[in-house]
Amino acid sequence: MINRNRIGIAYSLTSFGESHGKAIGGVIDGLPAGIPIDIDDIQRQLNRRRPGQNALTTARNESDTVELLSGIFNGVSTGAPIGFIISNCDQRPEDYEEIAQAYRPSHADFTYDIKYGGHHDHRGGGRASARETACRIVAGAIAQQALATRGITITAYTSQIKDIKLDIPYTQLDLKHIDDNEVRCPNTEKAALMRQAILDAKQQGDSVGGIVTCIVQGAPVGLGEPVFGRLNASLAAAMMSINAAKGVEFGLGFEFATKNGSEVLDLFTNNDGKIRTATNHSGGIQGGISNGEDIILRVAFKPVPTLMRDIPTVRRDGTPTVLHPHGRHDACVVPRAVPVVEAMAAITLLDQYLQYCQQLGFKQ
Amino acid sequence: MINRNRIGIAYSLTSFGESHGKAIGGVIDGLPAGIPIDIDDIQRQLNRRRPGQNALTTARNESDTVELLSGIFNGVSTGAPIGFIISNCDQRPEDYEEIAQAYRPSHADFTYDIKYGGHHDHRGGGRASARETACRIVAGAIAQQALATRGITITAYTSQIKDIKLDIPYTQLDLKHIDDNEVRCPNTEKAALMRQAILDAKQQGDSVGGIVTCIVQGAPVGLGEPVFGRLNASLAAAMMSINAAKGVEFGLGFEFATKNGSEVLDLFTNNDGKIRTATNHSGGIQGGISNGEDIILRVAFKPVPTLMRDIPTVRRDGTPTVLHPHGRHDACVVPRAVPVVEAMAAITLLDQYLQYCQQLGFKQ
Amino acid sequence: MINRNRIGIAYSLTSFGESHGKAIGGVIDGLPAGIPIDIDDIQRQLNRRRPGQNALTTARNESDTVELLSGIFNGVSTGAPIGFIISNCDQRPEDYEEIAQAYRPSHADFTYDIKYGGHHDHRGGGRASARETACRIVAGAIAQQALATRGITITAYTSQIKDIKLDIPYTQLDLKHIDDNEVRCPNTEKAALMRQAILDAKQQGDSVGGIVTCIVQGAPVGLGEPVFGRLNASLAAAMMSINAAKGVEFGLGFEFATKNGSEVLDLFTNNDGKIRTATNHSGGIQGGISNGEDIILRVAFKPVPTLMRDIPTVRRDGTPTVLHPHGRHDACVVPRAVPVVEAMAAITLLDQYLQYCQQLGFKQ
Amino acid sequence: MINRNRIGIAYSLTSFGESHGKAIGGVIDGLPAGIPIDIDDIQRQLNRRRPGQNALTTARNESDTVELLSGIFNGVSTGAPIGFIISNCDQRPEDYEEIAQAYRPSHADFTYDIKYGGHHDHRGGGRASARETACRIVAGAIAQQALATRGITITAYTSQIKDIKLDIPYTQLDLKHIDDNEVRCPNTEKAALMRQAILDAKQQGDSVGGIVTCIVQGAPVGLGEPVFGRLNASLAAAMMSINAAKGVEFGLGFEFATKNGSEVLDLFTNNDGKIRTATNHSGGIQGGISNGEDIILRVAFKPVPTLMRDIPTVRRDGTPTVLHPHGRHDACVVPRAVPVVEAMAAITLLDQYLQYCQQLGFKQ
Repeated sequence: MINRNRIGIAYSLTSFGESHGKAIGGVIDGLPAGIPIDIDDIQRQLNRRRPGQNALTTARNESDTVELLSGIFNGVSTGAPIGFIISNCDQRPEDYEEIAQAYRPSHADFTYDIKYGGHHDHRGGGRASARETACRIVAGAIAQQALATRGITITAYTSQIKDIKLDIPYTQLDLKHIDDNEVRCPNTEKAALMRQAILDAKQQGDSVGGIVTCIVQGAPVGLGEPVFGRLNASLAAAMMSINAAKGVEFGLGFEFATKNGSEVLDLFTNNDGKIRTATNHSGGIQGGISNGEDIILRVAFKPVPTLMRDIPTVRRDGTPTVLHPHGRHDACVVPRAVPVVEAMAAITLLDQYLQYCQQLGFKQ
Repeated sequence: MINRNRIGIAYSLTSFGESHGKAIGGVIDGLPAGIPIDIDDIQRQLNRRRPGQNALTTARNESDTVELLSGIFNGVSTGAPIGFIISNCDQRPEDYEEIAQAYRPSHADFTYDIKYGGHHDHRGGGRASARETACRIVAGAIAQQALATRGITITAYTSQIKDIKLDIPYTQLDLKHIDDNEVRCPNTEKAALMRQAILDAKQQGDSVGGIVTCIVQGAPVGLGEPVFGRLNASLAAAMMSINAAKGVEFGLGFEFATKNGSEVLDLFTNNDGKIRTATNHSGGIQGGISNGEDIILRVAFKPVPTLMRDIPTVRRDGTPTVLHPHGRHDACVVPRAVPVVEAMAAITLLDQYLQYCQQLGFKQ
Repeated sequence: MINRNRIGIAYSLTSFGESHGKAIGGVIDGLPAGIPIDIDDIQRQLNRRRPGQNALTTARNESDTVELLSGIFNGVSTGAPIGFIISNCDQRPEDYEEIAQAYRPSHADFTYDIKYGGHHDHRGGGRASARETACRIVAGAIAQQALATRGITITAYTSQIKDIKLDIPYTQLDLKHIDDNEVRCPNTEKAALMRQAILDAKQQGDSVGGIVTCIVQGAPVGLGEPVFGRLNASLAAAMMSINAAKGVEFGLGFEFATKNGSEVLDLFTNNDGKIRTATNHSGGIQGGISNGEDIILRVAFKPVPTLMRDIPTVRRDGTPTVLHPHGRHDACVVPRAVPVVEAMAAITLLDQYLQYCQQLGFKQ
Repeated sequence: MINRNRIGIAYSLTSFGESHGKAIGGVIDGLPAGIPIDIDDIQRQLNRRRPGQNALTTARNESDTVELLSGIFNGVSTGAPIGFIISNCDQRPEDYEEIAQAYRPSHADFTYDIKYGGHHDHRGGGRASARETACRIVAGAIAQQALATRGITITAYTSQIKDIKLDIPYTQLDLKHIDDNEVRCPNTEKAALMRQAILDAKQQGDSVGGIVTCIVQGAPVGLGEPVFGRLNASLAAAMMSINAAKGVEFGLGFEFATKNGSEVLDLFTNNDGKIRTATNHSGGIQGGISNGEDIILRVAFKPVPTLMRDIPTVRRDGTPTVLHPHGRHDACVVPRAVPVVEAMAAITLLDQYLQYCQQLGFKQ
């Protein structure tokens, strides 16, 4: 379920905050009581997303330190909502005087300005800034910890930057090495090429797009609710709510369109008494419900539209102007989007898992 | 917002029904009062989806006649919920005795069986059957009529079947000719090739996948709600809730991943006093909010998994068995999915439009 | 959760239909799979509410036969939504020509007319008619069956008609005798007095109000969700959504206002190893959460505003007019409201029970 | 709509925080853009609720200073969510060591302990503490400011303490004088008697209950959504979610039960071309929808269960014990509940008003 600034029914995040306001934060509701919460681990996930971590990312310097304000007592969840804030430290509103007057192309300046009658906080994109995704990391990291107690793990990695594709299936990759490089690609050679592609774009004042692949392992058969609350529908909404995401696919995804049915059936097998599928073209979801195989999805991100070049545009009143490069920006959002994709998958999975627990609990 | 068998907040559809039960139907809630409802037009949309309409579709013979039970008085919407049913006429439960015992690969038999502890109605897929999408057509057709009063139109067409791609941009197509052929592709030559590809697959007892493109025209600037209720997130959930849908993308979609930012910026122009974009790579959505340009999305469908061939599988108890071909099925779901994509877009757009009206109405 | 024509999150009813349209009905979503459904029992509850059952009720003759269209297979719930309709048989739209022109005092004619711009179905109150509560009975009866499998029972009875109060606590009443009389009061003497009060009012072309008391037994400790989703908040919303309901209270309710704290503390006791309270002034709810004692609530109903007398009023255009008595109406809604109160309590309890099962199921 | 720690659909508050944690706070979502926000006025409402303000209230010393973190720019709402926190300053967790071991009667200690498996934060009631209502004041004060721009005002006052009733109708009271006394009763004589009743109880280490009356003026015809989302159902849920609230009624409320229909019809009149009712027994709501008259409701509060006396109870393990008086508590919650009732009414009214704006906006 998505509604404005909230996602989830049984496990939900309601977030707030603008890029250059006092703080961002949110309320996490629905976490069952009794789950040990590792705050260091939440911070580790935040650090994977935070700006200024390496040469590939924006120079904006934010520690992204989360402060948990409620819902945890003696290190364990209480069932009460978890309120949290992340202060904005490196605010430079003066960097954004120009965009108070002119619309940056392919940004949200124009749509927010019209939608909200000129009352939005334009500084650094305000509410439309990807800075908001830090709140998702908090809710996602906590969801990952809860899911881990049920044996469910979520792993995302960079699988494409521009034309450099990691074509090796995830089953043949060592997913422990994702963070060995700045690109978050678990293959050293491809990672190096991807890194260079990003640096090349950066040098030219340009940017590049890419793809994040996400794998959910250990999900039981039965997550997802027919017919609108399908697991893939919920995951698609979660992914497409990430800034710069422009497409999402499951299993073979768009490749399915080019196939015959006979090529892509996932035949059932009896695996030592357990019914499994011999292949997993479907990406772990059948009829909108998890089938016990790994859930596989891919999210396409557009190149960030802020370029270190002069960009022609118009002002609010329609007169032409030119935006001059300054501010601090990523040349590619994909490496920092990796933990965000994990977070959104975790929030969705825990939400669906708790709804699935209704039936489990009722039978007791 | 999606929750189990309901979609939408301000305008919502709650649907029910199984493929071979007495009837399918639903409740439409939130339609404003005072909108003239053309029942013949709803039926026309239903006829575009119904089985047995031509050589490309399953031989199951269903008239798909909708009966509207409430919410309309003297031909005009009253603001009260619209209840409706569509009777199932051509029920042949005996065709499905086999699948009571064996799981059809890449169908929902297995996941439903485990999720619901063996209590689901397996006949013809039961609740998982695409027959349920007829209910979406009813809610979608009514939404299309309401949106039309605000100048918003929605058009979908088949843009790919297997490797046959309609590469011509929609702006150079005559979208009035979509229904001139059975494939619902607005280009005669491509349509003929696509039709043949489907018939070839059918002759071989096989099936094929494809892509539906959908264009929304006339939407104002401002539809969509940050940050989770983004227009693209809502549309993605709606599309991925359609049976057999495996991917969705907006504007350039996955192609964005291969691009530099400098190639795909949608620069602003002053078009006779109106701010527009010179290109529309973004597909009409910026920051999750409509920007007044055409909204463009594409949905990938997998080949239907029911083949007219012997298929090895397992029974509930894990023992191997072979499914023999019978029953009545489409060799390609895409032409019939075209009106379903339109319906899901219409439901989502009207839902977002009504939320957008809150701000409009408040200012009065 | 209430939203327009829907109630409930985990277990929900979305209803539709007008008093003199083709049919009323609804969709029940969220019932767990595997619960045997006794259709005769649903019909029995409907019969307790239906018009024309005895001298106290309106002469409108409706069989109120429910047709279940989905979600039940081989007599057992499947987890899929249950669609149902109840046809309107005894439609006499011509009885209502007068109210097309004039607003009946203390009815919804005026508010609906203004809210919906004159487009509502005025016949017999249309959507505002209490006929709609039949749909709640269906969802409630099914919820009662599901709750009964967990040992939870719900019983309502008439405890006041005009100034005739049943002052005996429910613990000293035999609640099996509620249906022994037409008033549904489990005390023969009071029932006779109440019956006479209703008949007296009827003879004078007048009507009377009253109170329904409802007892929930067998609920575990822990139902209800802080802080807004409190059990009493949910129950209050459910009760106040019933036609003609004007007040609701829990335990001592309004009497609490007149008390000292020292008079009304529910002291804890150790009852053979089980912690119980010695008294139950609170009505089974502490901090918004069930405490394992019986849940006690009372709902006040106003006298029905349709009188068999000439009533001065205004027409739509503001000119004065007089409504002349005709049509078919109850002189007191309370006896027929008894099963409706049970139904609303059952829907709410099952909804909360399923949310409570999330935590139960998660621990498994 | 209520769901766990959230209330509202179009305008919603999601709150968090425990009595003795770091801070309480919340997220307000759905406020239209362009509304000037007076922060001093929010603080004034908070001050009416805060502890330690006078002789009648608990000595706990909290400044209840709200910090608004987002959603407001240059003093005007932006349409983005408003995050806020209120720090807990006067934390004395050591006061609550005793209740870690023993259940306070008629408090939520027991129900929370069982529901959350012993993991709740027991200090000062934790999440169950009325301290949480400060967050509602913030969302309510902002809603009141928004409603005021549409001519809608909300006023609550103390109308009963123990057996001292203010029987004068609000139309004959000067509602500007509510805050002239500590009890918040707009009649000097009654206020003095009420004050004495509270001080008497306090001196005896006891507590007293009472009633708050709330009046909404200026609401248009048409607020409220059939059939479950009725205005009175939404308001009832909002009111019954307040700590210690045990009953709610509209217009004549429970008195309706004792009346004949002929005594309580609200006859229509033509008031200089505007259709009004001559009386307002219904309390401004007909068929669940506002009819343009003043909305009148009353909320009953139980005496606070914390007494300054020795109280026998049981420990977690069921062994008997005695609670000794200490800590800091109100002898009567009613005067401080007055602004909370206003806040809950304002949140509900704005939520319904925005839904009503959908139809208004659609017609434009």
